[in-house]
Amino acid sequence: MTGLDRIIENALAEDIHTGDLTTLSIVKDRHETRARLIAKEPMVLAGVGAAARVYHLLDQRVLFTNLFNDGDEISSGNIIAELLGEASILLQGERVALNILQRMCGVATLTARYVAQVRGTAARIVDTRKTAPGLRSLDKYAVRAGGGFNHRFGLYDGVLIKENHIAAAGGIAVAVARARENIPHLMKIEVETETMAQVAEALACGADIIMLDNMDSTAMREAVALIAGRALVEASGGVNLETVREIAETGVNIISVGALTHSCRAMDISMLLEGS
Amino acid sequence: MTGLDRIIENALAEDIHTGDLTTLSIVKDRHETRARLIAKEPMVLAGVGAAARVYHLLDQRVLFTNLFNDGDEISSGNIIAELLGEASILLQGERVALNILQRMCGVATLTARYVAQVRGTAARIVDTRKTAPGLRSLDKYAVRAGGGFNHRFGLYDGVLIKENHIAAAGGIAVAVARARENIPHLMKIEVETETMAQVAEALACGADIIMLDNMDSTAMREAVALIAGRALVEASGGVNLETVREIAETGVNIISVGALTHSCRAMDISMLLEGS
Amino acid sequence: MTGLDRIIENALAEDIHTGDLTTLSIVKDRHETRARLIAKEPMVLAGVGAAARVYHLLDQRVLFTNLFNDGDEISSGNIIAELLGEASILLQGERVALNILQRMCGVATLTARYVAQVRGTAARIVDTRKTAPGLRSLDKYAVRAGGGFNHRFGLYDGVLIKENHIAAAGGIAVAVARARENIPHLMKIEVETETMAQVAEALACGADIIMLDNMDSTAMREAVALIAGRALVEASGGVNLETVREIAETGVNIISVGALTHSCRAMDISMLLEGS
Amino acid sequence: MTGLDRIIENALAEDIHTGDLTTLSIVKDRHETRARLIAKEPMVLAGVGAAARVYHLLDQRVLFTNLFNDGDEISSGNIIAELLGEASILLQGERVALNILQRMCGVATLTARYVAQVRGTAARIVDTRKTAPGLRSLDKYAVRAGGGFNHRFGLYDGVLIKENHIAAAGGIAVAVARARENIPHLMKIEVETETMAQVAEALACGADIIMLDNMDSTAMREAVALIAGRALVEASGGVNLETVREIAETGVNIISVGALTHSCRAMDISMLLEGS
Amino acid sequence: MTGLDRIIENALAEDIHTGDLTTLSIVKDRHETRARLIAKEPMVLAGVGAAARVYHLLDQRVLFTNLFNDGDEISSGNIIAELLGEASILLQGERVALNILQRMCGVATLTARYVAQVRGTAARIVDTRKTAPGLRSLDKYAVRAGGGFNHRFGLYDGVLIKENHIAAAGGIAVAVARARENIPHLMKIEVETETMAQVAEALACGADIIMLDNMDSTAMREAVALIAGRALVEASGGVNLETVREIAETGVNIISVGALTHSCRAMDISMLLEGS
Amino acid sequence: MTGLDRIIENALAEDIHTGDLTTLSIVKDRHETRARLIAKEPMVLAGVGAAARVYHLLDQRVLFTNLFNDGDEISSGNIIAELLGEASILLQGERVALNILQRMCGVATLTARYVAQVRGTAARIVDTRKTAPGLRSLDKYAVRAGGGFNHRFGLYDGVLIKENHIAAAGGIAVAVARARENIPHLMKIEVETETMAQVAEALACGADIIMLDNMDSTAMREAVALIAGRALVEASGGVNLETVREIAETGVNIISVGALTHSCRAMDISMLLEGS
Repeated sequence: MTGLDRIIENALAEDIHTGDLTTLSIVKDRHETRARLIAKEPMVLAGVGAAARVYHLLDQRVLFTNLFNDGDEISSGNIIAELLGEASILLQGERVALNILQRMCGVATLTARYVAQVRGTAARIVDTRKTAPGLRSLDKYAVRAGGGFNHRFGLYDGVLIKENHIAAAGGIAVAVARARENIPHLMKIEVETETMAQVAEALACGADIIMLDNMDSTAMREAVALIAGRALVEASGGVNLETVREIAETGVNIISVGALTHSCRAMDISMLLEGS
Repeated sequence: MTGLDRIIENALAEDIHTGDLTTLSIVKDRHETRARLIAKEPMVLAGVGAAARVYHLLDQRVLFTNLFNDGDEISSGNIIAELLGEASILLQGERVALNILQRMCGVATLTARYVAQVRGTAARIVDTRKTAPGLRSLDKYAVRAGGGFNHRFGLYDGVLIKENHIAAAGGIAVAVARARENIPHLMKIEVETETMAQVAEALACGADIIMLDNMDSTAMREAVALIAGRALVEASGGVNLETVREIAETGVNIISVGALTHSCRAMDISMLLEGS
Repeated sequence: MTGLDRIIENALAEDIHTGDLTTLSIVKDRHETRARLIAKEPMVLAGVGAAARVYHLLDQRVLFTNLFNDGDEISSGNIIAELLGEASILLQGERVALNILQRMCGVATLTARYVAQVRGTAARIVDTRKTAPGLRSLDKYAVRAGGGFNHRFGLYDGVLIKENHIAAAGGIAVAVARARENIPHLMKIEVETETMAQVAEALACGADIIMLDNMDSTAMREAVALIAGRALVEASGGVNLETVREIAETGVNIISVGALTHSCRAMDISMLLEGS
Repeated sequence: MTGLDRIIENALAEDIHTGDLTTLSIVKDRHETRARLIAKEPMVLAGVGAAARVYHLLDQRVLFTNLFNDGDEISSGNIIAELLGEASILLQGERVALNILQRMCGVATLTARYVAQVRGTAARIVDTRKTAPGLRSLDKYAVRAGGGFNHRFGLYDGVLIKENHIAAAGGIAVAVARARENIPHLMKIEVETETMAQVAEALACGADIIMLDNMDSTAMREAVALIAGRALVEASGGVNLETVREIAETGVNIISVGALTHSCRAMDISMLLEGS
Repeated sequence: MTGLDRIIENALAEDIHTGDLTTLSIVKDRHETRARLIAKEPMVLAGVGAAARVYHLLDQRVLFTNLFNDGDEISSGNIIAELLGEASILLQGERVALNILQRMCGVATLTARYVAQVRGTAARIVDTRKTAPGLRSLDKYAVRAGGGFNHRFGLYDGVLIKENHIAAAGGIAVAVARARENIPHLMKIEVETETMAQVAEALACGADIIMLDNMDSTAMREAVALIAGRALVEASGGVNLETVREIAETGVNIISVGALTHSCRAMDISMLLEGS
Repeated sequence: MTGLDRIIENALAEDIHTGDLTTLSIVKDRHETRARLIAKEPMVLAGVGAAARVYHLLDQRVLFTNLFNDGDEISSGNIIAELLGEASILLQGERVALNILQRMCGVATLTARYVAQVRGTAARIVDTRKTAPGLRSLDKYAVRAGGGFNHRFGLYDGVLIKENHIAAAGGIAVAVARARENIPHLMKIEVETETMAQVAEALACGADIIMLDNMDSTAMREAVALIAGRALVEASGGVNLETVREIAETGVNIISVGALTHSCRAMDISMLLEGS
């Protein structure tokens, strides 16, 4: 999880800044206290290492013991982790640890629901670049924890030729040729298509992946048949928990879902201090 | 919007990093192009200045003209802003600008729905610290754009005495006294309560605001009556679009809603380049 | 002391930069040496933890044992702390540790003199925003170590309506109303006044704190009588060690003193290496 | 003034952080306003460019016109600079601009008093490394503005062999030899001495500058005579406005004064908005 | 050239730090001066935009007009660019601008020599990750300016399975299968091989690119024949200007050359101020 | 080695970024593995501490044991260091550690060759400011490891009056006088000269060091004789391994060589994992 420390330090600075006024003025006892992170609903866990890291960066002496691992399906009431540290430290890190953990579990749990829907088909559920600004590495990690796969991380590690690029180049063939001429040899080329003619054109010029953008199931089946394994096929647009199974059954290899990261609900998790 | 530039620079670095492989290899034409940001559903606008700033940081020559302002209610199909710049620049900034704008509009729109629900009552809808890590200033700005108000920004600019602090101090009275002894004189003190006895105790020791945590409407009405204007009253817990009106009608002054920022849905907005 | 590490790292980089030419070329012996931080005049201690942190950041193996704590009154000749580490490390950190410690002790000692002057009255001595650029957290910490209290940390954590704001709003009542309409509910509102009429106006519109700016003792007494406990009263302007007692005896609650942080004298402290 | 932008950005972040609550909620008028920076006592000016830079970094549209330059002696009542910008911006930058300017003018003015005391002698007044942490470049700039000179900036740009280095090396001659063997050829070597024997030893081994540490005038005269122009002579310790003339008249070349930067008083400067 | 500003700011801080002592004390004239960047030997240009950016970051008023573009072959004596700005600014930026430009031209020129050697064959010359620490984006840009191509930028944007990975997985087939299972679908997989058996194994399990590590020409021809276009072939190891043609003629598609970036010679370029 | 951590963190971020795709997907075994850094040609070692630091920053649990120290001459086949850590960590840090180490050994080895050439003469081999951008501290450290000396680190820690400064001032005497008037007393002044007349002028006005720029041996001898020990003499320009001995024999004190850092070849070093 690259950049994790920077994300956590930003979040801690944002929340604590010049100091936790309430805790510093009230909590004088410096004895160690126990606390627990408890799931308040069923979920797929993601981010338990990030939550541990929050406390490590706040105070290296905090003991953080996770009872489950990222990717585990857990039930309401399960204890995710046990902490031992000064009460004032546990309280100061609580909100940041939970904000990170609840969001990541939210992404993983939603991903897992999509993955469950397509079980038995050949389709991979993948994410998009529609992630929270600055949190892409966490979001994409959580997608993997939920059983999904990652699309490219950004504009720099994959070529995806869209409508605007095709228009600028004057056609799919020119666009693909220009890309192939310039990009590192380890990169594949994906082309977004909206019609069967475009699918055929993309296939003809050797696209490695063909994205079917906002096509209906019938069109997707037709495209899959036309492509016949000569390129990977990605479905994109109009994907939700109701439609994803039907899409997967068209035979596409990849289904990308923006909602995994742009519209997920935080999972309900709380921290309980001993004696409270 | 403090820290906005750092947020945008992180997001641009995250997305573009060593360069937009697709655009750089395909889009050779450096003429200026027009583009539009278009709302694909009704929403309350928030973040149009942030989206403009994305392009300003990417290339100062881009002209970004907003047709609506933050806080405006707009309809599906409305053009939010018009852009003029090199196609390759417009494409490179698209995802980051949209990710920020779509999230902020999501927060503002959800806030506005809560605000609409309590119209005519005395209650303010306020946010919480349950924001996306590192994005709190954007999230809280969007809450204001949606007609809500901000609770404290972090642990440093307000005192909120919770269960754990009360337990550590050995009672509400001691906790409030300790806080008053230590904190700057411009700070108020809020106390979280779960029972009528705690409400009475908080009131007796001069709490400025009393939070009613997870109480039902009957209990809230009773607390409001007991407090009788001698402190502000905040309702917290179990608030959703179905329950918020009833809560507001109990007479509380403030209703805090975590979902505004931790579980909002990104609004659907797209960017269209001319000629595409 | 938030941001302490950044302050220390800046100061170390500023002083050591590419290396301590003198020590690196001359001091070859890498045995551990003892050193002492010694007070050369009476003072109130502040910053001993910051001095320890300087050495911790420079070399984690240095043992730093403080014999006094922040807030202690110490005498000339007292040993503040004992250090054990490589001579070359002790020498490289000396100036930075002393610059921080001497300044903080200067602030704390001056604060303590003001606090001593008002002993027995109800008045708190508080600081202002007139701190050394970038060192506000250290300056404000030292004020507390000296027995004083903090005013707001910045423009973001308290509302202080001054002459210019009143002029811009067109009057105290409008200014206070606008503030109350917009600010988080945990914030109080302070109004700066120069005349008894303004005091009355501020009181009438419910200001939480009323600042008496540059009033003489007679006027202050009159204001205190007028306010009669319905708001806190802060005296500001023309405060020095000669006048502060008289000001406190007018009955004001708070006396703010810019000189605590903008014109303090560094306390005389030196570091002595064993065998030198 | 290297690093100036970083210093200003830190100071602005420290003061404004998430926003100027008072101004943002009250000052709605966005018309341009005039303001003046006015000296409230006589002083030597330093930092007017830094004050201008504060406003430039806050809002590039602010016009800042200085009527005096750094190094100028100005009188009480003089207008240092005129500003034109939005009132809310002028107010948000006021404290940071003044904190920097008042400190720098304090350093320059104090320096100028020392310089005036030694007029007619051959002695330079120089600063030390006893500067406010992180503000050394501003402090040293202000010393120059006041007519003083800079000693080395840090441990990296000059060799000053002190008591501890001599003890570690086992004598002045060894210490000087080791330094000369290792340091870049553009660096001079200064040796701190406490006795005439040490002066003689430092001279014998070719020290470029000999510091007389805490010697009385008679000893200093004797040392100056002994050295006889074969090295520069620096007086250090026990220097104040009463003693500095007598020290200068001993014939030393350089007098270093820690108080210039560690114990200066902020000059009284205020900002007045038009119409207030 | 992502990250360019950070690289330049680091380099300027490294060189100028607290100020150019020589220029600031000597060059008082603030009139604008002209200067020229002149090639002192034939070269392929790379980095002229970076050199311009050095001056832009130092002082936005400097006019920098390039007479050639990156990728151009230029002769000894050619004027690369003309500058107009204050002499003191031109002098302060000179070394940083030249250090960047001379290194980048060195990389581009060496690359062009390799490219010239393989002209007429199907082989691409590509770089490696053996770049100067922190300067990879400049090094790789310069390779492209010299007519070469980029291999992956780092460990994150391409899969290259080496000896150690194969050993850890227990064989090429397992390693390739694990990679394919986990990586984003836009990534290709390259396998390093040392024997014909490994080539066969890599081919059998569908490697997209097969690297021939330190094979002689005969072995390479054999491998190319065996692979027969079913994967791209990269030659690596033992490549220099004498051997590269023979390697290219074996039919490999890609030849990677570490020396392009780890052992290039800076091109000779100087800056001449008018009137000097 | 100031700033080393920042250099390493930049280099690791550059190489690893969002993660080592290959290793993370293939190497599942988390047992500890041994690895060795092995010299593949004779060299002077420099940077072994930096290589150790790469692994320390990547994973504090890696054991890094160096068998040689910086400055040691080692032979082909020598084991420079042994490592013990998880295979996946050893692999992720390999390229960054080697890139730093190979460059530093390259600089040290080349420096040592120059130093060997001038053995027995009085001349010091020194570096220049022609270093890789951002890596000056490493480059200059490596020069010292190779037996050379450092010229100034940047524009801030030494005065070197060149042609352009002389032209701007209107002559050497004015330039030297201006510098002496302004600079800290610990700084020496060096003057670049191209003719015997300039040498005489520089000497007359008391330059501490006189640089002979691009003179032939005869001229250098003449200059050395003229200067006669009254200033240090530096030879610059046209220095290579063939000419350096002859230059040293002219009697100059210092010979500066840009090629040490701008055109060095990376030494051949590899890392071998056990069992590979």
